Amino acid sequence: MTWDTVAIVSGGMDSATMVYHLLDQGRELKCLSFDYGQRHKRELLAAERLCLGKGLWWERVDLTSLTSLLAGSALTSPEIEVPEGHYEEESMKATVVPNRNMIMLSVAIGHAISIGASEVAYGAHSGDHAIYPDCRESFATVMDLAAQLCDWEEIRLLRPFIGIDKGAIASLGDKLGVPWEDTWTCYKGGAHHCGKCGSCQERIEAFAQAGIVDPMTQGVA
Amino acid sequence: MTWDTVAIVSGGMDSATMVYHLLDQGRELKCLSFDYGQRHKRELLAAERLCLGKGLWWERVDLTSLTSLLAGSALTSPEIEVPEGHYEEESMKATVVPNRNMIMLSVAIGHAISIGASEVAYGAHSGDHAIYPDCRESFATVMDLAAQLCDWEEIRLLRPFIGIDKGAIASLGDKLGVPWEDTWTCYKGGAHHCGKCGSCQERIEAFAQAGIVDPMTQGVA
Repeated sequence: MTWDTVAIVSGGMDSATMVYHLLDQGRELKCLSFDYGQRHKRELLAAERLCLGKGLWWERVDLTSLTSLLAGSALTSPEIEVPEGHYEEESMKATVVPNRNMIMLSVAIGHAISIGASEVAYGAHSGDHAIYPDCRESFATVMDLAAQLCDWEEIRLLRPFIGIDKGAIASLGDKLGVPWEDTWTCYKGGAHHCGKCGSCQERIEAFAQAGIVDPMTQGVA
Repeated sequence: MTWDTVAIVSGGMDSATMVYHLLDQGRELKCLSFDYGQRHKRELLAAERLCLGKGLWWERVDLTSLTSLLAGSALTSPEIEVPEGHYEEESMKATVVPNRNMIMLSVAIGHAISIGASEVAYGAHSGDHAIYPDCRESFATVMDLAAQLCDWEEIRLLRPFIGIDKGAIASLGDKLGVPWEDTWTCYKGGAHHCGKCGSCQERIEAFAQAGIVDPMTQGVA
């Protein structure tokens, strides 16, 4: 088996659409999902279902040993509450896991080298930019350079959605037939999407913008 | 407790000297050592002894869950033999663990953000450049940029030895009083330094160049 691209798949709507988009472009994908101690572990089940549903190679990467080293985020610290409200508010900074993207990208790049793939892909988009510095194009550009320099073979970093917003991703995903019921967005990780955390609110806005009914947040908004 | 710098300490002579060098400059250090499934786990004991000997905060980071993802190196795959011979030979590429430095740096940067430190340091030196792309200044420059861009607070990457060779490091370490008996270099990880693997040979050359007796490789060269 040979692969073109190692895709980082959180199980949310962005990475799900990215998987369908990269497959649509004819790429052979190896998918990685990261368990870093997030309270919304449900997203990992969504990622697995989504990837296996397309017959893809998928692995869960266990980074739970890093949780205490990266302390201080509402996503991994039970004592810090997940903030409710709009995604771009200052309070949402509590959901940042320190350097999460660089850590996931570095592992994905190492795995790409190990299996002979030449690309790594992640689903950062323009709506993330305000809250997450490691979703900005400036960061991605530098990580792409680092991926080219870290080994004898160059690895390239794909970030197909970094210039579009979540509404455009919802439209594209719908066109590509992404099974939205196999995606998970809510940071609270309960039995259903809460509709109130920043992540849910952003998803609800994206589907509204695209004019699409979302089976996962319908009725909770 | 506050820290200035998160130092990546392998337990070898370079990172040991780096610790003493950074302390000599007055920095408060938090030290991390990485278990990535290397066969020479003895280096972790050396790192612990060295750091605790200076009264430093030290943590062992467990990345053994990544071993299968980063397969293909003689350092982590029991079925691949550690090559003997000179450090700069083509055969030494077998000792490369895919993207090891980016992975360790990204975790160290995340930890620095988490504890409020502003720097991360690693002990890459000029003798590493031929075999390890991720020890070159071009790579370090880009990772320094990435560290500045990944969060709201800038983290800077120190690589104090990237312009000097291992002989100069041995001289500096000796001047600073590094306890060489608390360092470990041999890739084979046996009871004593083998004197034959590339890593041992490079150490022996460095001490010879510096005109210093090394308690760890004396008699095995």
